[in-house]
Amino acid sequence: MEIIRETPVNAVIDAHGALGMVASLKAMELAIEKGKANTIGIVGLHHCGHAGRMGDYPIRAAAEGMIGIVLLNGGGRLMHPFGGSARRLPPNPIAISVPRKNGEPLLLDMTLTVVAGGKVNLKAAREEEMPEGWMIDPSGQPVFDPKALQNKPHSSAIMPLGGFQFGHKGFGLGFMIDAIAGGLSWAGCSQTKPTRGASGIVMMAIKIEAFIDLEAYQQEIEYLVEWVKSSPKLPGVQEIYVPGDIESQNQKQRLENGIYIEQSTWDQID
Amino acid sequence: MEIIRETPVNAVIDAHGALGMVASLKAMELAIEKGKANTIGIVGLHHCGHAGRMGDYPIRAAAEGMIGIVLLNGGGRLMHPFGGSARRLPPNPIAISVPRKNGEPLLLDMTLTVVAGGKVNLKAAREEEMPEGWMIDPSGQPVFDPKALQNKPHSSAIMPLGGFQFGHKGFGLGFMIDAIAGGLSWAGCSQTKPTRGASGIVMMAIKIEAFIDLEAYQQEIEYLVEWVKSSPKLPGVQEIYVPGDIESQNQKQRLENGIYIEQSTWDQID
Repeated sequence: MEIIRETPVNAVIDAHGALGMVASLKAMELAIEKGKANTIGIVGLHHCGHAGRMGDYPIRAAAEGMIGIVLLNGGGRLMHPFGGSARRLPPNPIAISVPRKNGEPLLLDMTLTVVAGGKVNLKAAREEEMPEGWMIDPSGQPVFDPKALQNKPHSSAIMPLGGFQFGHKGFGLGFMIDAIAGGLSWAGCSQTKPTRGASGIVMMAIKIEAFIDLEAYQQEIEYLVEWVKSSPKLPGVQEIYVPGDIESQNQKQRLENGIYIEQSTWDQID
Repeated sequence: MEIIRETPVNAVIDAHGALGMVASLKAMELAIEKGKANTIGIVGLHHCGHAGRMGDYPIRAAAEGMIGIVLLNGGGRLMHPFGGSARRLPPNPIAISVPRKNGEPLLLDMTLTVVAGGKVNLKAAREEEMPEGWMIDPSGQPVFDPKALQNKPHSSAIMPLGGFQFGHKGFGLGFMIDAIAGGLSWAGCSQTKPTRGASGIVMMAIKIEAFIDLEAYQQEIEYLVEWVKSSPKLPGVQEIYVPGDIESQNQKQRLENGIYIEQSTWDQID
């Protein structure tokens, strides 16, 4: 790992092919260090391996009384642009974590495609069909076979968040995440052959107390959570979740009961 | 206008009820000034009037060789949470602008609801029905009458981006924009009666050259634009747009041909 540009609030790191999880953790730690000392830290990272779950990084900032934000222009180019049919953008996830008063930090970790590639691959491993609205073919017709993601790269694509009606928004934000994470990190934006392989990451840590007392901030988040959860539910809905609720519930359940893994995935691990 | 907290890279401004457009412009100018001097500038703003079109501010950063980002927790609480039926979050727009090599800066300016409230009001003014997917009633059935936005605040709500299938994403990001813009600005997050009225704005300006040479960055954006536009089009689509294309085309057309305004809106102005 080599820092190629640096100021008191930012840095760009060339990971020289380091393991993604290790490099990303170092990058977030540097962003947090800079943010603690100078209010904000933004660190760009390129040329590292797969960084795993993006949500793992911003929660580290939130645990230190900061807002953590992570952008990635990666995950395999599989999203079609709004109005287009071919794969052009990666899912380009954004992950944001904020601390709250009563509980663990809230965490949003989402792609700008309707679903991440992993969810399609999971459907394939379980021999299930995809519902309409996940992938399309070049004529705009729905693709139901999840194996198309691997087998038909030139005639299937995952839809941007918003689909046919509002996909300009999911695509537009995915495009801007590409422009920020690909551009600032030196990884390069999405194109036929991205300059330094794309998969650039930008990690940001913002010290809340430079803006407002941490306790006052955390109280505001609590008000927001309560207010959202006070909404009447739609028929058939058991609970209204705020970002991170489902992941916390799943973690708890899986720590108790284990994780279900289908046979075909076991076979790949064996 | 009063600066109530400040460091070399951030500030929080109490606008004391100033006109929103003036206060927001000052806030973005301060963010740009701090970003030029210290790589990043983030300015929070509360207690100002309606700030108009969010996109007006980040393009000013992009015109100075920076990335401009604006978040607002405002626009009237009209979005239902994912799984809920009542209005809880504002559209909470995000606007991002980046400079490119061949042309004006690119600009994304979008709400996290499927449509902004203004689009619903325009339908009402033009006596048109809304398509399915815009608003729902408490049972989750589509609302077609756009006048429900004004007339039925307790039994209609605009859907989050992603709708019934993927609305956890639009809602989740809208929630986090509320947490950042409402919390850091002192305006307060969305709740029954937000602490200082909500409608908090956070303006960010990032100096690109602290990360990568501006020319190299602008070239990357050009590659991204070309790559996206090289996608085959879906049947019936004339052009693939990147963020800001449609707005530029509309501006050009309207400067030449004028702006269509329906009679009912004229009547309100008269």
